[in-house]
Amino acid sequence: MSDDDALEAANARFYRAFEALDIAQMDRVWAHDEHVKCVHPGWPLLVGWTAVRASWETIFANTAEMRFTLSDVAVVAGGELGWLTCTENILSEVRGRVAVTSVLATNVFARDRDRWRLVHHHASHVLGHTG
Amino acid sequence: MSDDDALEAANARFYRAFEALDIAQMDRVWAHDEHVKCVHPGWPLLVGWTAVRASWETIFANTAEMRFTLSDVAVVAGGELGWLTCTENILSEVRGRVAVTSVLATNVFARDRDRWRLVHHHASHVLGHTG
Repeated sequence: MSDDDALEAANARFYRAFEALDIAQMDRVWAHDEHVKCVHPGWPLLVGWTAVRASWETIFANTAEMRFTLSDVAVVAGGELGWLTCTENILSEVRGRVAVTSVLATNVFARDRDRWRLVHHHASHVLGHTG
Repeated sequence: MSDDDALEAANARFYRAFEALDIAQMDRVWAHDEHVKCVHPGWPLLVGWTAVRASWETIFANTAEMRFTLSDVAVVAGGELGWLTCTENILSEVRGRVAVTSVLATNVFARDRDRWRLVHHHASHVLGHTG
């Protein structure tokens, strides 16, 4: 499998973990160190796996359903790092409210032996396209 | 100079070019290919140097003054790529209106011989902190 294909597969695993609302799957997707970072739409920057993991637990506890259709997936690999942009077309149900939203995401992955691990997720709304 | 120091210097050049509202400086900061990408706060994803460069020309034409103070700068280098997160504390004047804003940025750089060139800029507002 090429690096580009492997990165796209790692990215798909991230969104499947998000859809499953399953912290054990998230644990396998991310690197677990103090350098990992995450920006959920509108949230401040989270730094370190402990803070990032806690944010997923909070989101999963407050989300009934989440379905992603990805578009515009573009991958660039370079040595030990790879980065990817995509549009997250999201159908979600949070506290009984169903919403359709488009979010732009930048995801950075680091090579960990034969796997790519997520080290940074930056997601933000496009103005006029928020749900 | 270490990769981390060189990346931080390349990042500082990007914000100096932005403050100078100088497209010639921007030209020297960015890689010039079809893979470069840019997300200005609330904008859709721009793909390719032609589209990214045009966005800077539009922003510079509509901005009277822009001053950045960066905080929380964190750098990770890995082979041919490097990525950096920072908080842009911005004093700006657009169409006569002065605003103070905090923006989160993810900047990805690619090694180009002895230089790091910007290949991706993703900037987004923190809700409750927009100017």
